[in-house]
Amino acid sequence: MDEKKLPSKEENYSDWYNQLVLRAELADYAPVRGCMVVRPYGWALWENIQKTLDRRFKETGHVNAAFPLFIPMSFLEKEKAHVEGFSPELAVVTHGGGTKLEEPLVVRPTSETIIGTMYAKWIQSYRDLPVLINQWCNVVRWEMRTRLFLRTLEFYWQEGHTAHATAKEAEEETLRMLNIYTDFAVNEAAVPVIPGKKSESEKFAGAVHSYTIEAMMGDTRALQSGTSHNLGQNFAKAFDMKYLDESNQLEYCWTTSWGLSTRFIGAIIMTHGDNQGLVLPPNLAPIQIVIVPIFRKDEEKTAVMEAVAKVEKMLTGLRVKVDDRMELTPGFKFNDWELRGVPLRIEIGPKDIQKNSVALARRDIPGREGKSFVPQEGLSKTVKTLLAEIQQNLLIKATCFRDEHIFEPNDYEEFKSVIADNGWAYAWWSPNIENETRIKEDTKATIRCYPIQDSEGEGTCIYSGEKTKQRAYFARAY
Amino acid sequence: MDEKKLPSKEENYSDWYNQLVLRAELADYAPVRGCMVVRPYGWALWENIQKTLDRRFKETGHVNAAFPLFIPMSFLEKEKAHVEGFSPELAVVTHGGGTKLEEPLVVRPTSETIIGTMYAKWIQSYRDLPVLINQWCNVVRWEMRTRLFLRTLEFYWQEGHTAHATAKEAEEETLRMLNIYTDFAVNEAAVPVIPGKKSESEKFAGAVHSYTIEAMMGDTRALQSGTSHNLGQNFAKAFDMKYLDESNQLEYCWTTSWGLSTRFIGAIIMTHGDNQGLVLPPNLAPIQIVIVPIFRKDEEKTAVMEAVAKVEKMLTGLRVKVDDRMELTPGFKFNDWELRGVPLRIEIGPKDIQKNSVALARRDIPGREGKSFVPQEGLSKTVKTLLAEIQQNLLIKATCFRDEHIFEPNDYEEFKSVIADNGWAYAWWSPNIENETRIKEDTKATIRCYPIQDSEGEGTCIYSGEKTKQRAYFARAY
Repeated sequence: MDEKKLPSKEENYSDWYNQLVLRAELADYAPVRGCMVVRPYGWALWENIQKTLDRRFKETGHVNAAFPLFIPMSFLEKEKAHVEGFSPELAVVTHGGGTKLEEPLVVRPTSETIIGTMYAKWIQSYRDLPVLINQWCNVVRWEMRTRLFLRTLEFYWQEGHTAHATAKEAEEETLRMLNIYTDFAVNEAAVPVIPGKKSESEKFAGAVHSYTIEAMMGDTRALQSGTSHNLGQNFAKAFDMKYLDESNQLEYCWTTSWGLSTRFIGAIIMTHGDNQGLVLPPNLAPIQIVIVPIFRKDEEKTAVMEAVAKVEKMLTGLRVKVDDRMELTPGFKFNDWELRGVPLRIEIGPKDIQKNSVALARRDIPGREGKSFVPQEGLSKTVKTLLAEIQQNLLIKATCFRDEHIFEPNDYEEFKSVIADNGWAYAWWSPNIENETRIKEDTKATIRCYPIQDSEGEGTCIYSGEKTKQRAYFARAY
Repeated sequence: MDEKKLPSKEENYSDWYNQLVLRAELADYAPVRGCMVVRPYGWALWENIQKTLDRRFKETGHVNAAFPLFIPMSFLEKEKAHVEGFSPELAVVTHGGGTKLEEPLVVRPTSETIIGTMYAKWIQSYRDLPVLINQWCNVVRWEMRTRLFLRTLEFYWQEGHTAHATAKEAEEETLRMLNIYTDFAVNEAAVPVIPGKKSESEKFAGAVHSYTIEAMMGDTRALQSGTSHNLGQNFAKAFDMKYLDESNQLEYCWTTSWGLSTRFIGAIIMTHGDNQGLVLPPNLAPIQIVIVPIFRKDEEKTAVMEAVAKVEKMLTGLRVKVDDRMELTPGFKFNDWELRGVPLRIEIGPKDIQKNSVALARRDIPGREGKSFVPQEGLSKTVKTLLAEIQQNLLIKATCFRDEHIFEPNDYEEFKSVIADNGWAYAWWSPNIENETRIKEDTKATIRCYPIQDSEGEGTCIYSGEKTKQRAYFARAY
């Protein structure tokens, strides 16, 4: 670990983020432009994200599978909007086994087309529906400007692809998965996302409409953190995905797709991180508790290490790490684990042994205020309660921060100043693609979403002045 | 599901295998030559393989990470033997984001080179060692002749890559992982593999030496089912992977790599499968128990389905599936789940309800002999004992089959007839690459391994007639 201090968020947010990712050993730059190595600490976080999401997918009847990495170029071309959206970002394999391929293969940027092809083969009758399949995999999009986790050439995600007998079922599924993402973000990651619908210009290439969860980062910019698409019959028609219904009529299926990626790690970093480094929500933290033994003289060592082992055993079932590195000072270790965002630190020294207590330090409350001394008796329960409290506190803090930075401008001048001051604008909006483009040119802000839970009523569009019943969130985004 | 019978193993083993994989819905052919789709049932099996292996990796101090899919061509060229071994099999990305790349990127066939590059950056001192990282990922090798699971262009695996301070530690690690593979194969998959060392001509491209676990398939051909390589300092030197030792001297690291892939699913199929279909070991089976309700008249239905629900609840914690498809007959369902290899079937009909019992049918013992009637009381315990018995029985059966087909020929004529009759030959052998090639030309047999646990003594080489202390397993292999 590097002993230099992190740049502060206020000084240079972007630099703070990059340094934090590198120094907390979440990820590193790969020798291939725009690619990343997810290091063990970062991958352990991703594994916890995977577990908590995968459980939710399986509880709602989904199963996992694996579809090929390579997609024939011609498949992408079958859905017009889809190929237009993705063609600038493709990585293409032209040679295999030493010879030039007859048809170039695309490294999947997303798998609607290859999965559509298989579903068309597998689905015959209404009895085969719904098909509810997810895959955890890597995808590649040839991005020009990349950032660790936020936008990389190769990234890791899950992509769910479902096929249904009716439009209604497909829409229900699309919203079910949006709700699962929201539930995961709020209750596991303590990221208070706003679920909503994408505008026409921001929807997925090939979708009828797209839903999104939008999170506010520590610099108030928005991060699209997961999406769920209703694909209607667009892909079913492109890939001839038909079924015989109960009255023996051949019908096209209705399909959906939904994905959440390693980008979400960026959301966690930028929602909770502070100038000391990462702050991880206990539900997802690879290490929930670090135990640091404290002793000055060698004769104290044995007793302290015994007490540490005893305490570690008390905490079985929690994710605990004992930092027994002998060459480093406690102060160095404190900084190190704060940088890595471990929610709770336990310190055990000779005095604690005498008192049969331990010292606790919360990562979410820096300094003295976050410290307490508790008896070893009942420690497991104490610590579990505290971890739940930390989890809750992170969500509350992030929700307050978010709400403090959402404004409701009354006219376009106010709107522009809200965006310029890096807040979000929640404004009446009469959907219009050209106006959307003009606002983006003026302010760099885009429509993040039309919220699912919107207040009723009517107002005046912030840009056109037209009467409208719709409101939208506008923000600059990653 | 298809109602046609499977081809028999005796009639056409290869056709039996292919049909079984397709009809049990383990995998399907992808529209890209040589690629496969792993279907949900096959992927659930792989997830169970992953869980049981990953637990073992983590218990021995390994952590997971993710390294990039793309490797610059020049990296592969840094280790001479490595690039020679892999260059005929590479898939190459030449275009990205619409433009031709300056340096072509290889889709990883294995990751020693990219990981070596990162380790060289991360490792500074002896304190950073050992590095014990694994990744679960997809890899691509441009194979000409492919078979579902056994050899596909893209496959899924784990690859462990470790770096150590001494040659001794690296060799210990290589053998530790070989032992983990053996333990997994024997105790989870009931595949009685023979662990051993590869001959010089069969070792990994770039390794000092390679270890393997070799399994005998139902047609007596061998399947290499997992490998562990001691890479010595070959890759450390090629990638400048150095550390400062305790006396402040700069030393090269010693590295290992080890992998087990979706090919192992082929090993499970061909070790246990029979003419009814798949036979899965209970420890890995996605569904351990299927419950089939039996009733003829509609008035029986309610009582039977209630009893089924009651029994299902008794078996909480086991992987249970209730087949409540109303449009299908029990007989059809029996065949269906036998084809899919579910270890245990529970039948519940009106008579069983009267007697407060259920009927059990073991997949590993076909027909009446495998059927029993047991009380519902204590069913969970009964069933757990039975699953353990099935697991054990599969291992015993496979071990007997293996041992019945290993012969110890006394001379080369006998050797040739052993191989021609599709057995394995366990023979005295004086290592010689040219003789190895001649034997392969004569018989299509290769050295599978020099077993780890070898009997002592001395004998006469089966081919050269030289005195030798070494014995080897020879067989035709997949």
